[in-house]
Formats: sequence, structure tokens, C-alpha cells
Amino acid sequence: MQAQIITIGDELLIGQVIDSNSAFIAKQLNRIGISVFEITSIQDDRAHILKALKEAEELVDIVILTGGLGPTKDDITKKTIAEYFDDTLVRNDDVLKNIEDLWRKHVGGKLLQVNKDQALVPSKSKVLMNKLGTAPGMWFNKGEKTFISLPGVPYEMSTLVSNEVVPNLKEKYNCPHIIHKTMLVYGLGESALAARIEDWEDALPEDMKLAYLPNLGKMRLRLSSKGFNENELKARVDAEVDKVLPLIKDEFFGFEDEDGSAEIIIAKQLPKIGKTLAIAESCTGGNLAEQFTKNSGASAYFNGGVVTYSTESKVNVLGVSKALIDKYSVVSHEVVEAMAANALKLFNSDYAVATTGNAGPTKGDSDAEIGTVYIAIATKTKVYSEMFSLGNHRVKVVNRAVNKALEMLLKEIFKNR
Amino acid sequence: MQAQIITIGDELLIGQVIDSNSAFIAKQLNRIGISVFEITSIQDDRAHILKALKEAEELVDIVILTGGLGPTKDDITKKTIAEYFDDTLVRNDDVLKNIEDLWRKHVGGKLLQVNKDQALVPSKSKVLMNKLGTAPGMWFNKGEKTFISLPGVPYEMSTLVSNEVVPNLKEKYNCPHIIHKTMLVYGLGESALAARIEDWEDALPEDMKLAYLPNLGKMRLRLSSKGFNENELKARVDAEVDKVLPLIKDEFFGFEDEDGSAEIIIAKQLPKIGKTLAIAESCTGGNLAEQFTKNSGASAYFNGGVVTYSTESKVNVLGVSKALIDKYSVVSHEVVEAMAANALKLFNSDYAVATTGNAGPTKGDSDAEIGTVYIAIATKTKVYSEMFSLGNHRVKVVNRAVNKALEMLLKEIFKNR
Repeated sequence: MQAQIITIGDELLIGQVIDSNSAFIAKQLNRIGISVFEITSIQDDRAHILKALKEAEELVDIVILTGGLGPTKDDITKKTIAEYFDDTLVRNDDVLKNIEDLWRKHVGGKLLQVNKDQALVPSKSKVLMNKLGTAPGMWFNKGEKTFISLPGVPYEMSTLVSNEVVPNLKEKYNCPHIIHKTMLVYGLGESALAARIEDWEDALPEDMKLAYLPNLGKMRLRLSSKGFNENELKARVDAEVDKVLPLIKDEFFGFEDEDGSAEIIIAKQLPKIGKTLAIAESCTGGNLAEQFTKNSGASAYFNGGVVTYSTESKVNVLGVSKALIDKYSVVSHEVVEAMAANALKLFNSDYAVATTGNAGPTKGDSDAEIGTVYIAIATKTKVYSEMFSLGNHRVKVVNRAVNKALEMLLKEIFKNR
Repeated sequence: MQAQIITIGDELLIGQVIDSNSAFIAKQLNRIGISVFEITSIQDDRAHILKALKEAEELVDIVILTGGLGPTKDDITKKTIAEYFDDTLVRNDDVLKNIEDLWRKHVGGKLLQVNKDQALVPSKSKVLMNKLGTAPGMWFNKGEKTFISLPGVPYEMSTLVSNEVVPNLKEKYNCPHIIHKTMLVYGLGESALAARIEDWEDALPEDMKLAYLPNLGKMRLRLSSKGFNENELKARVDAEVDKVLPLIKDEFFGFEDEDGSAEIIIAKQLPKIGKTLAIAESCTGGNLAEQFTKNSGASAYFNGGVVTYSTESKVNVLGVSKALIDKYSVVSHEVVEAMAANALKLFNSDYAVATTGNAGPTKGDSDAEIGTVYIAIATKTKVYSEMFSLGNHRVKVVNRAVNKALEMLLKEIFKNR
């Protein structure tokens, strides 16, 4: 079963917007065993849309279009789709009601004609109701082939894909189940991990695929299998996971789908054990705090953080001793440990994590090499730190430091499990 | 002049990686008057690559490929390109030397055969030397048409596009100059801004295009023109800008290309006037600090910040009075002003900005509506705050709050210019 994704919009072709919709759709389709043959971004233009539809119909079973459905662009895309299917546009009362409701709630006043016209849909299409916006999704059957048109606004698109597109495609095409189990593994590089689990990997059944997914110091290990009996599949994958876990028990921290990534695992664990977290950052500049605050519910365990960027603020705000800094420099084991220990007290927390380092491109308040980062963990009974060399690309240094800090924190929190 | 961008890689089609390369390339091509007809992501597969090359050659003048050149994938993509041009692969000594240098510097030990083979290039191609990685860029002329193959690693690709691809295309095709002047305008919505400058806009010469680029509370106003005499173009665009600036003088804060966005303008101005900045964040959770620390040189003016997420930390770390919080709630004018004033003192700074609010999706330590955000500015002589309603989508609320905070800070810093 193959699909093509067509994204429509001049803003993509002038580089104003990065197409993140296609990756989302591709991921969801792959999960139900539909592979994506090609992704194409085209202009908001009748001839170009017709050409793309024709080519896609020749090559694949499922064509998914996104974008080109806003009130001002409505004319071209929707009319062109109707033309392609030899169809006419008719008013859909459910869609009109949805538009009126949204308008009343978010805008108010008289509904404009351009918005009313968003309720016009090709008569042969099945509407995929978009509760989040005024442009409806549309589903067309043409023999065994399927064409789906979705709005381009990412959260409207993604909601429709999850709630309508995926379930309907599964039903129509009797898609196989694909089971992925993704293990989060911290603290082992790809080759060390591969060596550790080599015998297990070699003995995996033919239909199971193992993927190593390294990403800036994090590692995910994904075991997948595909088939029609969901329960049997799940049991077989679980059985293999049960065999590998003892081999990586010190480095394994959870399953991605169930437990999320490191910050999610930490966010779930801390309230469970009634503990709180504080953060003191220098080179990571707010990035580490953001890993926790970007998700809702952080106030249950995250007491707060400081970004002590200047040396002076490390002294005045965190109370790191000036003499210590003069003796060891701001980028040192001694200073990062003092930062963590003092943040713990300042925020009255159970765990604290601190970073200090030089992210480049030039040297800052210390002579430390670019890419040198110290990270410390403090608890009520101890404080310790590690030094890392994280390359010389500023953005990567910061991202790697954030991942290393999360890894150290994860290990500390789960140490006695 | 039209181009097609072809990105190669299975990782794009399974949704593991979002294609950000195409938007970058499209933007650079548009700047020299080359429009992008289509962007296509295809598999790492001989037949698919040949098909895409053939179709692109029929439709456009310039074909740019990225990806598929890693050491392990080398075989398919490069061999297929050579096959398409009826060519053979030959060793390029300059490329080999570059690979050996990079290997010695970053890896060490014996160079692997797969890496040596990256020095094989089609004999008819001109090498675009990639100093940042082992996969070279390649340029092919076929009559008037041009084919360019680039590595997929974003910073290798972008460096080659800026240093090699754009200058060479400009020369080969005698591209027109395109002058953009983008004005950063804060504090006016799109329609209010349009009304303010209507007469000026209506009187613009035919060849000048004005674009309104709103983005989560920021507004950019872009005036563009295209032609062959660069100096004359510049003078004409500047003359129009000189006419519009007096109409928006209180809302204009700089030019994007020269001055960057709000945080860059602030980052340039503060060291110039010898002033420093502190930040106290609640709902923006480290995001605001990151706007400054993500760019190098922040230590020249950014003293630091606190993320006082919990109510307790607002009291203990920032010294906000418990009675004040009890009386007005944590999401209030009174508390945000206390946060800003106390951060100013704590970090011994000239300016401080503070945020508190409810980003949702559930209510936190206060009864404030989701999307309600208070932002305060403190200086050594005053403190004031504003309240905003920023919608109900968590990520958007945070981004809008960050933009509003930058806007208020910008206005304060430039108030007496």
C-alpha cells in the first residue's frame, strides 16, 4: 500500500514556511503499514494541482493533500479538486454550522461571504469535520483509490489525521498492525550498545526489525513487527523485549510510546515519589528549564530555575563563593557543584541539576575550550559532577548538554529502583 | 528562471526527519529571482532518482538535489547521478585530502574505505568543496540547464548554498538583483498598520511589492523590488522607506536584514549604551532567557534570569511578598511588577522583564483564564505592566508572551531615542 503526500502553498516554495505536516502524516501512515512513495510541494495553481493529482493517481493508492483551503485561497484548490473529480460544489449544512459556531466564539459579528463559502464541498466527497477550524477535510473514493484533502494549519491537520484519516484508512484497506516498542537507553553509544546486545539481535525472528535511533547523546532502540493478529504480535514483541532488558538494565529508562522521552519520564516520576526539582543553568541558558515547562503539569514538581549567565549573578543570586570561582574558574567541577547545591537550597528542592560551560563560538568568562560543559546533580545528601566535550557547534553543544543533564538526572532519580 | 528541489532520503518518507533544507534553499533562490516550481522528497532508490531527474529536467532550468551522499548510502545516489549523465566516477584528490584532514581532526585512526570512496565524483562534475563534511557538492552543466547535488546535513548544505551555489547561479544566469528591505514593526495589528500607511502604499511604484508578514504578535513589513542595476534599485527602495518611516516612527524598531529581530536589536543596543538585562519568568518557563542566550555574546549584557515556576519560589527566590500574592493572586499586575522589580535588584541590572500567566491547558496556581499573561518592565526609576489574552493553545500562548515581552522591552529601551 503506497501513498503520496502533496502539500499546496506558495509559502512553501518561497521558503517562508517549513513543511512539517508531511513528516507528521508520513509517520502516522507508516504506523499502519502504508509507505509514502513521494512527498511533493506544489504551487497554489490550477494547472499544477491537476498535474500533481494525475501523476499521483498513476503511482499510488492513497493521495493526501494538505493546504490551499484558507478562506482567500479557497477558490483555486477546492474548485480544482472538484474539477478533477468531474464534480460540483454544494453547501454542506453541518460544515456551515461549525463555521458559524467558530465565528461566534472567536470572532463575532457578521460572518463574511468568504467564510460561508468554506462550507461548499464537492458533492461526491465525504466531509471530515474540522472542529478546530473553518476549512473541512474531504475524502474521495475513486475505485480502490483514495484522495484526502486536509487543511494546512498543523494542529487542525494533525487532529483530523489521528481522528479520521488513520481509522478510516485502516478500515478501508484492512491495514496490518504494526507494533513498535521503543526503548529509551541512556549512557551507551551506538557501537557499545550493539556489542552488548549482539547475540540477542542475531537471534531475533525474521519478521522483527531492530533500529538504533541515536540523537545528540540520546539513544532509542526500536523493535518493530507487522502482522494481522494484533494480540499475537504484541505478545511476541513483548517477549523479545523481556529478553533484552536484562542486558541493558542500567541504561534503560522506559518505553517511548508509554513513557515519553527523558523529561517526560522525570515529569511522571517526581510527583509519584513526592519529590521536587530545581535547575541552575549557565551555558544552557534556559533551555533545560524549558524541557520541563513546555509540558503542562510542571508546577507539580518543578520549583524553578535560575539562569546565572554572568559570573556576578552566580555569586549574587546563587551564592557561589567568589573565591571558589577565582580559584577554579566558572567552568569547573567545583563551581557547577556549588551551583547545584545552592539551587537545591534556594528552591527548597529534592533534586537540583546545574550546567556551566562554553558553548562557543568565542570563549566567555573562562578559558575553557569551546564545547566543554560541566554538569552537576545535587540531592539532600550529596553533590557530584561530570565533564563533557560536546563539539564546537553552539546549538549542538547546548542540545547535547541538555540531553546529558537529563540523562544524569534520570539516572539519579531511578538509581535505587 | 525556475528550479526544482529534490530531497533524497527514506528518513523523510517515514517522517523521522522534517525537511528544513528545502525551505532554506527556496528562500536563497527566491532572493536571486529564481522561483521554485516544485519540491519533491523521494526514496534513496535508483529508479526513483532517475525518474525524478528526468521529470525535473523537462520542467525546470535548475535542479538541486540534497541528501543521499552519506558514506553508507554513497553507492546509490552518486552512481545513479553518474548513470543519468552517462558518466563514470573518478577519484578527486582535493576531495580526498579534505576527507583525510577532517578524519585526522575529528576521528583519528585509519581512514575507512567507505570514507575514501566519498572522494569519487562523476568526471563531468565540478566539485563544490565541502569543508565541513566528507560528502562533496557537485555541479553539472547540461546545455543551459544546471544540476547540483548537495549533502543533506543542514549546516554543510547551507554553507555550500551561500558560498558556492548562489554566486555561481547568479553568474551563469545573469540573475536580477532583488532588494528586500524588511521593517520590524511592533505594537500595531495588520489592519491598523495597513490603514496607517494606506496612502503611501497606494502610491508605490508598480515594480515595488509590499508584504505584511505577521507572526504571533510580531509584524514585519517587507518592501521588495527586482532589477539589474543594483545601486539604482537600492536607492529607489531606500527612498520609499524614508517616506514610510515617519508614519510608523513609534512602532518601527529596525531593519531585519541589518538589525535582526527584536532580541537581536536589544542584544546590539544594550552593550552600546552600557546597560544590562535580567529576566524573571513564570509561564514562559525559560523561553524568554533563551531568546538571548541562544546567540553568542549574551554575557555582554545579560546578567541572568530566574524561572520561578512555583508560587513558593516567587517568594523565596525573588522575594515577592506572600501577602501580595494572597491578596492579588500569582497572575496579576501587582505580582508581575514585584517580580520585575526584584529581579532588577537581584541581578543588579538596568532593565528587567517579568512574565506570569496561565499557558494552559489546565489552570495552575491561580484562577486566571487560560491565555491570560501579565508582563512587567522594571528600570531603576519605574515599573509597569500590561495584561494580555493570548489564546488557548499552550505553545502559542508562550510564544506570543515571549514576543510581547520583547516588544515591551524594545519600546522601553528605545523610548528616548
